[in-house]
Amino acid sequence: MADKTGRGAGTRRTHKTRVGILGASGYMGGEALRTVLEHPDLELAWATSRQPRPAHHCHPDLVGMGIELIHPDDADPCDAVLIALPTLAAASQTARLLDSGSLVVDLGAAFRLEDRSTWERVYAASHPCWERVGEAVYGIAELHESAIRKARLVANPGCFSSAAILALAPLLREGWIDPERIVVVGLSGTAGAGADLDRAMHHPEIGDNLVPYNAVDHRHSYEIEQELSKLAKREVRVHFTPIYVPIVRGILDSCHGFALRDIERPQLLELYRDFYAASPFVILCEDPPEPDVSWQTRPYPWVSAVAGTNRCLIGLDVDPERGRIAVFSALDSLGKGGARAGVENLNLMLGLERSAGLLGLGLHP
Amino acid sequence: MADKTGRGAGTRRTHKTRVGILGASGYMGGEALRTVLEHPDLELAWATSRQPRPAHHCHPDLVGMGIELIHPDDADPCDAVLIALPTLAAASQTARLLDSGSLVVDLGAAFRLEDRSTWERVYAASHPCWERVGEAVYGIAELHESAIRKARLVANPGCFSSAAILALAPLLREGWIDPERIVVVGLSGTAGAGADLDRAMHHPEIGDNLVPYNAVDHRHSYEIEQELSKLAKREVRVHFTPIYVPIVRGILDSCHGFALRDIERPQLLELYRDFYAASPFVILCEDPPEPDVSWQTRPYPWVSAVAGTNRCLIGLDVDPERGRIAVFSALDSLGKGGARAGVENLNLMLGLERSAGLLGLGLHP
Amino acid sequence: MADKTGRGAGTRRTHKTRVGILGASGYMGGEALRTVLEHPDLELAWATSRQPRPAHHCHPDLVGMGIELIHPDDADPCDAVLIALPTLAAASQTARLLDSGSLVVDLGAAFRLEDRSTWERVYAASHPCWERVGEAVYGIAELHESAIRKARLVANPGCFSSAAILALAPLLREGWIDPERIVVVGLSGTAGAGADLDRAMHHPEIGDNLVPYNAVDHRHSYEIEQELSKLAKREVRVHFTPIYVPIVRGILDSCHGFALRDIERPQLLELYRDFYAASPFVILCEDPPEPDVSWQTRPYPWVSAVAGTNRCLIGLDVDPERGRIAVFSALDSLGKGGARAGVENLNLMLGLERSAGLLGLGLHP
Amino acid sequence: MADKTGRGAGTRRTHKTRVGILGASGYMGGEALRTVLEHPDLELAWATSRQPRPAHHCHPDLVGMGIELIHPDDADPCDAVLIALPTLAAASQTARLLDSGSLVVDLGAAFRLEDRSTWERVYAASHPCWERVGEAVYGIAELHESAIRKARLVANPGCFSSAAILALAPLLREGWIDPERIVVVGLSGTAGAGADLDRAMHHPEIGDNLVPYNAVDHRHSYEIEQELSKLAKREVRVHFTPIYVPIVRGILDSCHGFALRDIERPQLLELYRDFYAASPFVILCEDPPEPDVSWQTRPYPWVSAVAGTNRCLIGLDVDPERGRIAVFSALDSLGKGGARAGVENLNLMLGLERSAGLLGLGLHP
Repeated sequence: MADKTGRGAGTRRTHKTRVGILGASGYMGGEALRTVLEHPDLELAWATSRQPRPAHHCHPDLVGMGIELIHPDDADPCDAVLIALPTLAAASQTARLLDSGSLVVDLGAAFRLEDRSTWERVYAASHPCWERVGEAVYGIAELHESAIRKARLVANPGCFSSAAILALAPLLREGWIDPERIVVVGLSGTAGAGADLDRAMHHPEIGDNLVPYNAVDHRHSYEIEQELSKLAKREVRVHFTPIYVPIVRGILDSCHGFALRDIERPQLLELYRDFYAASPFVILCEDPPEPDVSWQTRPYPWVSAVAGTNRCLIGLDVDPERGRIAVFSALDSLGKGGARAGVENLNLMLGLERSAGLLGLGLHP
Repeated sequence: MADKTGRGAGTRRTHKTRVGILGASGYMGGEALRTVLEHPDLELAWATSRQPRPAHHCHPDLVGMGIELIHPDDADPCDAVLIALPTLAAASQTARLLDSGSLVVDLGAAFRLEDRSTWERVYAASHPCWERVGEAVYGIAELHESAIRKARLVANPGCFSSAAILALAPLLREGWIDPERIVVVGLSGTAGAGADLDRAMHHPEIGDNLVPYNAVDHRHSYEIEQELSKLAKREVRVHFTPIYVPIVRGILDSCHGFALRDIERPQLLELYRDFYAASPFVILCEDPPEPDVSWQTRPYPWVSAVAGTNRCLIGLDVDPERGRIAVFSALDSLGKGGARAGVENLNLMLGLERSAGLLGLGLHP
Repeated sequence: MADKTGRGAGTRRTHKTRVGILGASGYMGGEALRTVLEHPDLELAWATSRQPRPAHHCHPDLVGMGIELIHPDDADPCDAVLIALPTLAAASQTARLLDSGSLVVDLGAAFRLEDRSTWERVYAASHPCWERVGEAVYGIAELHESAIRKARLVANPGCFSSAAILALAPLLREGWIDPERIVVVGLSGTAGAGADLDRAMHHPEIGDNLVPYNAVDHRHSYEIEQELSKLAKREVRVHFTPIYVPIVRGILDSCHGFALRDIERPQLLELYRDFYAASPFVILCEDPPEPDVSWQTRPYPWVSAVAGTNRCLIGLDVDPERGRIAVFSALDSLGKGGARAGVENLNLMLGLERSAGLLGLGLHP
Repeated sequence: MADKTGRGAGTRRTHKTRVGILGASGYMGGEALRTVLEHPDLELAWATSRQPRPAHHCHPDLVGMGIELIHPDDADPCDAVLIALPTLAAASQTARLLDSGSLVVDLGAAFRLEDRSTWERVYAASHPCWERVGEAVYGIAELHESAIRKARLVANPGCFSSAAILALAPLLREGWIDPERIVVVGLSGTAGAGADLDRAMHHPEIGDNLVPYNAVDHRHSYEIEQELSKLAKREVRVHFTPIYVPIVRGILDSCHGFALRDIERPQLLELYRDFYAASPFVILCEDPPEPDVSWQTRPYPWVSAVAGTNRCLIGLDVDPERGRIAVFSALDSLGKGGARAGVENLNLMLGLERSAGLLGLGLHP
């Protein structure tokens, strides 16, 4: 069983791949940092911050590790780079890194959308290097594994997007729900808001509170629609609303579709079981997280169980009477919805075992 | 301004109305208890528990008040009774109380549904006194004020139902959204789960977690559909999913409807402003809860601000591009979604000022 | 019983006292605001902010109340002023207000210490109007009621100080514990840190965390020592450490003293019962907050039960074997540890009933 | 740097040690389970529960791992056993296991105390196999490494005890503080209360609350006094009070001692640096966890950073004026304060590298 934990997994090689992290002072960069540090086949080349300092000044869990964040100007070329910078800064760094021969995984939004006018409207800026967008592969291994293996630039998905796309992909490929009336309510822990101070994230404000924001036309809507439309082979409309809740880590997307045919829960489970049979990281919740829990919570995922992991838990339900399908997907916005998925993509780009360094278990409680 | 707080409100009368509370050891009964204690025109006749004990053994905030919970058998007749018992127990007490001349507000589900077969299927029991259901008025003062004034039995709505009905009533009366494809995701604090111990409410399990339950065909769906269908003058389908979140008090219903015509946010605000012009308790959030909050949270309600109050805050948004209307409503499941709304109904039944004893402000933070 | 809630309490007078609030945009000023609004005998003259705006922009619970924060320059003279400004600003406003004939309650630290050199060292500034400090009475009604009744300037205590002084006063008056080795660990909700954004109060940082700060030589130590030394009639040393915990409202001081004589819990309870017999706001927890709670929590206060109230709950225990007395005191840093205690002091200064407008109950859960 | 993460650490051996876990349905047993699963040199022989079921029914993070909890009667002999049973059940299993040739680490309290009458009074029972207590070594590797290496039975310390002993050991060995007046206030997340439902752990009760319990004469006091007395070479009195706080994982012990000589912070830091120079798991916090944090939090540990790890973070401060030394220690009650420390002890008993499988990093945020 111990193999399942991934220790000893991956092909032990004499030369480890040297990986740099651009922008390691924030939460996403910090997760990239600890994922690389715990990876059997990767070696940290450097991690940067515009304010060089010991890493544990930003990430207290790294106290005693002796890691220093260096200035980006002092970063030498390396095999691969994980970028955790603001969108425009990331976009302007990428061309240089690709040209220097590095593989690049952008953990931000610079290369996620395929339509320029949409990108420039949504991100309210002109794209600094649109000519390279064509090289980017959208980084969901469950959908684009072979393309990611060949890619030199991967656009890592947004956290809500990863959860929603994984939750809805099977239904849209099969055409079982109305593609124009899909409602997704995404609940996010506050880590998803990042390290910058914000009134809505001040503990006295959100500690006992629930904070909807960008309730319509959220930026992630466009990546979700782009990816699901490809699967549906027609235009998909996603009606997405995010709400911050007072937990630190984790996202729970609750996705609601109107069935175009009669479906029972067993067929639905079978569809998802087959669709994700090959994925080490998407796990279907078919029975209770805990037998003592009142039966109602039976088939639903436990978001606390995915914190710090690269796993996505999916749960399913159907209301045959009203013709609705409900899909829940839970992941960590910094894990399978962020930096760890970025390392999963990097594993593929490097020809490593896809799950190398990513099979760590979550905690409970 | 001080009048707004309700001090000195209500007609000071020499004889206060004597109110009894059946089932005062749980959270709903406890809220009924403190609401009656703080009411200028009501006097606590008695509060019961099958295990008689000082009230503060169940409700620590009442320490020092010297209130004793008595056995139901020791409860003498009084002017009005608030019932906070399990559904069947409540149903079987009600006839006796009505016949003894008491006004009755049932804070539970015994009298909420008008269709017997639906009630008996949904509550998986045969109704102990269906013959009295006809006397019950569904207790949302914003919709049924005149009927409540005449009623001797009021069925207080469920917490999610109050929030959803208040959020959607104007849209359905106007016929602005598709009545068959309304999605409501209700987020509930753990107080809504009641005082009985439950694995899903054990702090180590839910403290960092989000717990969907009864994700389809929830009991409250039927009251919401019943009330909204009357307003829409046609059958309404509500696709409702509740999720427990780790806050203690408060509910946030996020309601999503597909627009049947072009609507801009200003028209929507005007509709709601007019619809609730006469209600002292439904407040429209038209501008920011806090100017420093990133603009996105602009028009949305703050659930922490309604804890312990009889207020419902409503916020609105529109996605003209995708044709979706989003309505958020926040209330306290024990306040405007429970015992305080029950006292609002009782005020009307007694010919008191509707807001008597109910204008207390919430807290922030 | 209903009288206990304070409705109808206080002498109804044709002319209400006009009260102004200097600095109403923060949490303390906001609590002062809602306490004045809910007070039967006080009328809000004005509430100020350097950035005039609707009050609900700072305090979402006040949405719909139509209250505007005005610029301090536009504030006209009134009967009494509650000051919730930074220490130095408060100090420099006070003389002017006193000379204009207003009664003043400073909710901050400007007038708490009687020794100038101590004050100037502790607050690292020279005091702008030390000549008026002699007029100030330290505002703990349980200890200084008659002086407060005569005062025109009251220095409201710090939140940790109120809790520690109320917890330890009886023991030090009696000389039952070693006055030089008193350890107080104060746990504070994040509201105590105020509305200014701070890394340590960013939800992702403190949501799952415990944050000690100023672990030695905290400013509040000096007020606690000053007040307890008077009671002990000798110098008292308080070894105080505060820790922020992820709740929003409330403080729990855990106070530990070494017994100078043999003491059993019953004597201790009797001492506190007598000492606080006359106080409407200090309540002794002699039995369980909740019978189902495992016996260990028996005599201890429930901090969640004091949020939004002017109450202080005290619990006691003794370790006869090791000769330690443990006293727990719970209050709301904005309530009995802040603005509500400020209004309690103002009631006394105005000759009103001490408890007028302050008998509101807390909530549970 | 990657070595530091322990990947590839430990002596890779053809035959892994087969480890059984007695009582794997609770939180402590669950942590033992995931620690063994992630250990490079250990193999899970079996994990038991009186109610055999899939492990993820108790531990949702293990969904998809295909691990079954078996009935204890079906457990065959193996190399080593981690016991996570109630105290008396553990005591009665141990003799049999030792006689069958297994190494045993008891994660409970059965073998922690060396004095029989104390144990039987504190645990209110007669000890089922006192004759074997002499074989047990108290499992703090920082103090008893060589004895643990030779032991066949290790008594794993209590969570509060580990934190307090590690925090105070250097001071007591040096005799720098008064050994009879040490005050320890231990703050515990709710995971420390275990998986059994309890009113005080019901989210609505503790979600916004702080719950002191066993405020005097707590069982852990005796282990702390036993171990510190050995170091001090005289009797030590520890005045310990635990308080539950609404976080899930982690313990913060705040320890207060009265200095017997003048001490400055630098000397104190040097003492602790030297004392723990050899320990891979005790880390001294000498500078800020986060530069933006207001300076006050400077030298203190971040409990959220140790969740799921085998680390103990220690912070120090001194009040020279009042002669107090404050020591803070943070660890995870299931990690360095529980099952992971148990595996650290097992590593030593097995002649493995002490840190094998235990160098996983924590998370932030």
